[in-house]
Amino acid sequence: MSDAFSDLKTRLGRIEDLKSAAEVLAWDQETYMPPGGAEARARQLSTLQTLAHEQFTDDAIGALVERAAEQLDGRDRLDTEASIVRVARRDYERARRVPSSLVARMSEAVSRAKEAWKEARKADDFEMFAPHLDRIVTLNVEKAEAIGYEAERYDALLDEYEPGMTTETVASTFDALREDLVPIVDAIAEAEPIDDGVLRRQYPQAAQKQFGETIMAEIGYDFERGRQDISAHPFTTSFAIDDVRLTTRYDENYLPAALFSMLHEAGHGMYEQGIDDALARTPAADGASLGIHESQSRFVENMLGRSRAFWQHYFPRAQGAFPDALAGTDVTTFYRAINRVEPSLIRVEADEVTYNLHVMLRFELERGLIRGDIAVDDLPGLWNEKMDEYLGVVPDTDANGVLQDVHWSLGAIGYFPTYALGNLMSAQIWTAMQDDLPDVRTHIAHGQFDVLLDWLRTNIHRHGRKLEAPDLLERVTGQSLSAAPWLDYVRTKFGPLYDRSL
Amino acid sequence: MSDAFSDLKTRLGRIEDLKSAAEVLAWDQETYMPPGGAEARARQLSTLQTLAHEQFTDDAIGALVERAAEQLDGRDRLDTEASIVRVARRDYERARRVPSSLVARMSEAVSRAKEAWKEARKADDFEMFAPHLDRIVTLNVEKAEAIGYEAERYDALLDEYEPGMTTETVASTFDALREDLVPIVDAIAEAEPIDDGVLRRQYPQAAQKQFGETIMAEIGYDFERGRQDISAHPFTTSFAIDDVRLTTRYDENYLPAALFSMLHEAGHGMYEQGIDDALARTPAADGASLGIHESQSRFVENMLGRSRAFWQHYFPRAQGAFPDALAGTDVTTFYRAINRVEPSLIRVEADEVTYNLHVMLRFELERGLIRGDIAVDDLPGLWNEKMDEYLGVVPDTDANGVLQDVHWSLGAIGYFPTYALGNLMSAQIWTAMQDDLPDVRTHIAHGQFDVLLDWLRTNIHRHGRKLEAPDLLERVTGQSLSAAPWLDYVRTKFGPLYDRSL
Repeated sequence: MSDAFSDLKTRLGRIEDLKSAAEVLAWDQETYMPPGGAEARARQLSTLQTLAHEQFTDDAIGALVERAAEQLDGRDRLDTEASIVRVARRDYERARRVPSSLVARMSEAVSRAKEAWKEARKADDFEMFAPHLDRIVTLNVEKAEAIGYEAERYDALLDEYEPGMTTETVASTFDALREDLVPIVDAIAEAEPIDDGVLRRQYPQAAQKQFGETIMAEIGYDFERGRQDISAHPFTTSFAIDDVRLTTRYDENYLPAALFSMLHEAGHGMYEQGIDDALARTPAADGASLGIHESQSRFVENMLGRSRAFWQHYFPRAQGAFPDALAGTDVTTFYRAINRVEPSLIRVEADEVTYNLHVMLRFELERGLIRGDIAVDDLPGLWNEKMDEYLGVVPDTDANGVLQDVHWSLGAIGYFPTYALGNLMSAQIWTAMQDDLPDVRTHIAHGQFDVLLDWLRTNIHRHGRKLEAPDLLERVTGQSLSAAPWLDYVRTKFGPLYDRSL
Repeated sequence: MSDAFSDLKTRLGRIEDLKSAAEVLAWDQETYMPPGGAEARARQLSTLQTLAHEQFTDDAIGALVERAAEQLDGRDRLDTEASIVRVARRDYERARRVPSSLVARMSEAVSRAKEAWKEARKADDFEMFAPHLDRIVTLNVEKAEAIGYEAERYDALLDEYEPGMTTETVASTFDALREDLVPIVDAIAEAEPIDDGVLRRQYPQAAQKQFGETIMAEIGYDFERGRQDISAHPFTTSFAIDDVRLTTRYDENYLPAALFSMLHEAGHGMYEQGIDDALARTPAADGASLGIHESQSRFVENMLGRSRAFWQHYFPRAQGAFPDALAGTDVTTFYRAINRVEPSLIRVEADEVTYNLHVMLRFELERGLIRGDIAVDDLPGLWNEKMDEYLGVVPDTDANGVLQDVHWSLGAIGYFPTYALGNLMSAQIWTAMQDDLPDVRTHIAHGQFDVLLDWLRTNIHRHGRKLEAPDLLERVTGQSLSAAPWLDYVRTKFGPLYDRSL
């Protein structure tokens, strides 16, 4: 271990401790904090984040990164030390390019925009939010210019969440996807609808928790190194590789609300728990990108959790857990119900097939905002036009349309596409897994999940951020990003469900 | 506001944020953290504490403190700004006197001693712990010498937990107390024992929580600015004046375990919640001393929670909450049961009367250790002799004797006496309250607690650390520390309970 590397690692470790402390405080804020704690908590978080940022952007980090990189020159791409230095350098260079005055102005704009968004959504009044969104766009343009880009500004923003990805790749992938997907959605909309009434019976919360957490543990989420609590919006957060927390929320009259959020977050959690211990307390101990992260959550939620094989194994136990709701139902009825497709207004409630269309719409609009092709005032109209075009439904209100998502009010532009990238990657990964493990469906149907988790750990989880998302995907699947495997998956699964050739 | 003060307050605010963050992490560790999180958590806490210490002992703080003190010279003793500077100066000077090499050696010794103590207690083998305790004593002697003292070394250690108090005052107060208390305990031991079987029935946990938290809210603990969770050992922690958390633990076969721990911690919590907002995010937003803090918890637990007037009000509701256990019982039987006195081996399980004797014994032994009059190897024998002399019971094992408390293994010497000081002060404060509020028992019997809380807020809580404990006590009670009011209280309460003139 070189001296420069050793010094760098010590410094990075302390900075990671500060960031982890901030994560604990943020988790507490969403789970247990009493209302009175909010004001002090905002200041505590700001102090921790400012301190972590100051320490990380210190000249000394830059100098150590350069010396360590020099000393480790020639190491393999997957070498732990070289990877840590590469990731630190990337983050350092990005962080140094954004002037602290811009960070401060963004933070101020966001704290106002968040409040304005909440009130605007409640009042169903886009005008209340528009000036704040305008400010967020302006500051994101300034940020993109500060960071720099090759082809277009949006690249610099996307790169924060999806390193190595370009706007052009996203756009052409989405175009190809949309061309095939819109007719599929149309065909399903015309077919006989699936009745999902079985999911809308009485499901007691305690039984949902018990049943869901048992499944989570069996598929590989380690409760000795994590736990699940309740919050308004489910999320995963990591305080260390050995302390990865999840949250969920319950609806006693709709089983999927908690069940599939648990599986989704378990997918994120298993990724974080599976990172190589050698990367602990460094910025490399994280997911390769938000898209790769989402591929893991969607794989568990959809490829695994909404598959027939999975419920062949678990449906009898579901009947035991919820005897009143499920006693007279069979596995086929249940499997069909959890896979009901219906174009709808709200992204977070969208089914597996229509979800990507919600994401594409947002990507197109925010890309236009950053390019300057679209004005904030035009958003509500454009939103509704695209909803009609892609999904055949038009929001009754802006609250159920352009005002539904929190992301823009948080200053996050470039984040949305990662949801759809995650879906596409999950199908590419699922295809590769089936090639490697021809009996994988049989394993699932027998509740043997070790082999799946081992495969994910070996191929994806343990690497953390050692590889950027495109490299990782290429390595695992032999392909670059593509919509084709996901479209194949959808056709093969939903054709029989809707008795149509898709 | 002077410039120096303003700069100082900004710096102190950031340091308090770091300390609060550490408190959140420590709270999580005791309440929700999964087992796997322990290793990373120890490092995160160490990083936060080291950083807070480094920032606080920076020369710049000392310079700002001096300039601010000069600029605020002549302000009233209760002036907020002058008090903040005075408290900061006190803490700064103490912190600077302890060399960082000593802090590091103590921290290392403690981390070994904690493990050794756990194993020694489990194995009932004092020899396993003795060398670690010896080291802790040596380092505390070094610390006392570094800090400095007038009369004896122990003064320097006591001053950390009980500012303004001297060893000589504690010793003479305890001597006077013991002289009267031992005969009282003897007399009670000879009287007809009280049967507390009613408390050892079945008390469902959910009902205990509901009943206890209702009482806590009614006496003045604000759940909008706090919450109660479960931990192995009950404690109170403050993340901000508006976010003060408590913990408890339940025994379904012994009602007092949770009930009186809830009242005790509520007393601590109400103190922290009652501090003047103007002191927020400064080191003055804390209790005046551990003794004063304990006076608030013991006041609520004993003067209020074990009083007849309190249960005149609450017993019918207790019968409603625990119908199976209490339906056939009357308030007198219940009141007598919760006030049963019996000399016993374990401090934390001791009743209100015998508790102080456990504390005195520890004070005498640790004072002897620091003076060099007592060797660590002599502790088990001395412990058992004193138990026999003061309480008339002798531990069957060292695990139930000299090894029972965690404090020494944590490096804390000078802490124990504050428990008994708190008891004595609680009676002095209770006497003063009765003088000011002649109808206070009637208020309690009618469940009117506002008037009590207002009195405590006005006289004690709001001041935080503005006044040192002796000043505060003098101001509130017109007296310096004295055992007489507590002895009067005990005689008046327990004489009738045991049908003896005490």
